[in-house]
Amino acid sequence: MTGTTHEFFTVKTVQQALDDLLPLLTHIPAHETLPTVQARGRIIAEAPRAPLDLPEFARSSMDGYAVRAADTFGATPSLPAYLKVAGVIPMGARPDLRVKSGHAAEIYTGAMLPEGADAVVMIERTQAIGDGEIEVMAPVAPGENIVQIGEDVAAGDAILPRGQRIRPQDIGGLLAVGITQVTVTARPRVALLSSGDELVPPAMTPSPGQIRDINAYVLAAMFEERGAQASIHGIASDTFDDLYGKARSSLDAADMLVLSAGSSVSVRDLTREVINRLGAPGLIQHGLAVKPGKPTILAVCDGKPVIGLPGNPVSAALVARQLVLPVIDHLQGAVPVRPPSIRATLTHNIASTTGREDSVPVRVITNADGTFSAEPVFGKSNLIFTLIQADGLVTVPLNSNGLRAGTEVTVYGL
Amino acid sequence: MTGTTHEFFTVKTVQQALDDLLPLLTHIPAHETLPTVQARGRIIAEAPRAPLDLPEFARSSMDGYAVRAADTFGATPSLPAYLKVAGVIPMGARPDLRVKSGHAAEIYTGAMLPEGADAVVMIERTQAIGDGEIEVMAPVAPGENIVQIGEDVAAGDAILPRGQRIRPQDIGGLLAVGITQVTVTARPRVALLSSGDELVPPAMTPSPGQIRDINAYVLAAMFEERGAQASIHGIASDTFDDLYGKARSSLDAADMLVLSAGSSVSVRDLTREVINRLGAPGLIQHGLAVKPGKPTILAVCDGKPVIGLPGNPVSAALVARQLVLPVIDHLQGAVPVRPPSIRATLTHNIASTTGREDSVPVRVITNADGTFSAEPVFGKSNLIFTLIQADGLVTVPLNSNGLRAGTEVTVYGL
Repeated sequence: MTGTTHEFFTVKTVQQALDDLLPLLTHIPAHETLPTVQARGRIIAEAPRAPLDLPEFARSSMDGYAVRAADTFGATPSLPAYLKVAGVIPMGARPDLRVKSGHAAEIYTGAMLPEGADAVVMIERTQAIGDGEIEVMAPVAPGENIVQIGEDVAAGDAILPRGQRIRPQDIGGLLAVGITQVTVTARPRVALLSSGDELVPPAMTPSPGQIRDINAYVLAAMFEERGAQASIHGIASDTFDDLYGKARSSLDAADMLVLSAGSSVSVRDLTREVINRLGAPGLIQHGLAVKPGKPTILAVCDGKPVIGLPGNPVSAALVARQLVLPVIDHLQGAVPVRPPSIRATLTHNIASTTGREDSVPVRVITNADGTFSAEPVFGKSNLIFTLIQADGLVTVPLNSNGLRAGTEVTVYGL
Repeated sequence: MTGTTHEFFTVKTVQQALDDLLPLLTHIPAHETLPTVQARGRIIAEAPRAPLDLPEFARSSMDGYAVRAADTFGATPSLPAYLKVAGVIPMGARPDLRVKSGHAAEIYTGAMLPEGADAVVMIERTQAIGDGEIEVMAPVAPGENIVQIGEDVAAGDAILPRGQRIRPQDIGGLLAVGITQVTVTARPRVALLSSGDELVPPAMTPSPGQIRDINAYVLAAMFEERGAQASIHGIASDTFDDLYGKARSSLDAADMLVLSAGSSVSVRDLTREVINRLGAPGLIQHGLAVKPGKPTILAVCDGKPVIGLPGNPVSAALVARQLVLPVIDHLQGAVPVRPPSIRATLTHNIASTTGREDSVPVRVITNADGTFSAEPVFGKSNLIFTLIQADGLVTVPLNSNGLRAGTEVTVYGL
């Protein structure tokens, strides 16, 4: 090391870097077909269409009487319509009666409308008068209190768009029209490799000078939460041979490799050299216009993304959110969604520098009037507990040199 | 059925109903201890404390030279301090040298500070001049570019509060201080039972008059997402014996029972009667001041919650979000969290009635200026596809008779 050692790289914004990276990813995991009931959180690969109308038959949406609407026209409490009750519609079966003019059939919510009837009178608008007759005290319009065939969804309609993450209600929509199998994208396999001579596995007691490797575990949990299958490939030492060997086998067994390397310049150089040897075209970007996370490395090796994250756990976690989660979404064909956020008033000034986007951990405080305040969590940017004490992130935009206390800001969930 | 059949019940708000229900729940699942790396999404049962300082030794946060700060006082590019380089600090080991006055030791980011040194000079502020000597061109203060012992977290400090859901970074914080096992609350076992003579399992082809049962699957997915273990116990017919028998065995095998019954008055009466026989004290509330979801039944049976949801899938899903998820949180000891939400401008009027809280599905549209609009999804309130087309919910408060187009509203994620 000499006093003139510097890193020369031109930073890009995260979006610019992603715009360069994503088109080069030719290794996209295949689709798979799953039982719909097991597909929560998975991504729709092929937009399913309704194979049938829902409902398949006109249903009553009330307890009451199935009638011909015309028979009720002009009915009032003082001048009711008199109808003869022809029978009761069974639940879950085709009615075996036909409602003729002057007749009604007792019907319950969800039952199939009998032939002849075109409306349902709510029971509250009727009065039994004995001898199998009722008074109807208010008119109904044709179609009233009925769910028509195909009113929920029509045969042939697209049910869910490609790229949507399946929510509980989406499972319901698929099952409602009998789609019990659904084609979803595969969960990308993300290999995680740490490097650093100072690292030991978390279950080991570190000797003086050593620390526990946590990045692989934080990142694995974050990626799993997003839908990936994460695999942890241990710790490589800071030598080319060991790091290259472990990176090679990790990447070969996965759809993507995320390295978390030490933060010294020489280790970053080593990481870059290793990544560049994993496949063509290799390195495409070193340096992002973000803080923390500037010395991040992006590469594409034989169609697969390889990301080198800083060793600093805060940098690794925050740049992974911004950069790696969108890559995972891309690999699993997920349409980007708005991350959950709230609006809050900043309690303290945040200093920044133009030309980079800062992520600042904050605590969200609920004020007496129901509004929110965002209080920056102070502490050096390499302290993992700043992220644990925080419940949100505030972003200082690229072209801003800071945010003043009192500014209304968007706080993203952390 | 006669024309005078009505349901008589006094509605309560969801919060009032929960306030009545939760104190009666004496059957709370036990805690369990898990490997920390498998604890994502689980709820902290016992607040862990740091067993050691993090870091356990003072570390450099820069590449540069470990020095005695006093040796650099007054240094400038034109009048640098001259220091002799005594050696290099290895990564991951205790330094075997001591920095004396007039000396410096080469050090990398993350390495252990050697004895004698009290600061690190960034390499960019130094110049190697040969003969093992460097010029230091700027002063450093004591402690500068160092992470001190216990600065991230101090031994004895609480790491995570009881009731917190474990996030990826929390796994990192636990592992960083060597906590590889964590005590979390058990996942509540929620039994789901559907009833209705018109229902068939989703994989069956319904005959005329029949429909597929989807509520159990929508609710199971929603409850699993919240951390519960859901089990689906099939479909009971609308007879006391069948419904009671299945409800009894379902509840016995679980920590909670959620029934989704038909929407007709007679079926609701049957459900209430069955629930009331499952244990003491039985029924505690029938009727919530919400739309949809008014005819919801709450009971406590021998210390376990039993909830009877409407059969209408939209009602069932929406009232489950408001009522059942808080019960699951309670059973798993989770501190309530702010549901994700955004602020948006309503595009259309929403009518309501005072005395009930309405949940209205909306689509969120991103406007050109980055703000959001919320567009109500129109359609009858019992159409499941209104929830599938929606990506958020707007709430019309209890004491409001509607919201005007143009109002700024909070949209909750759906």
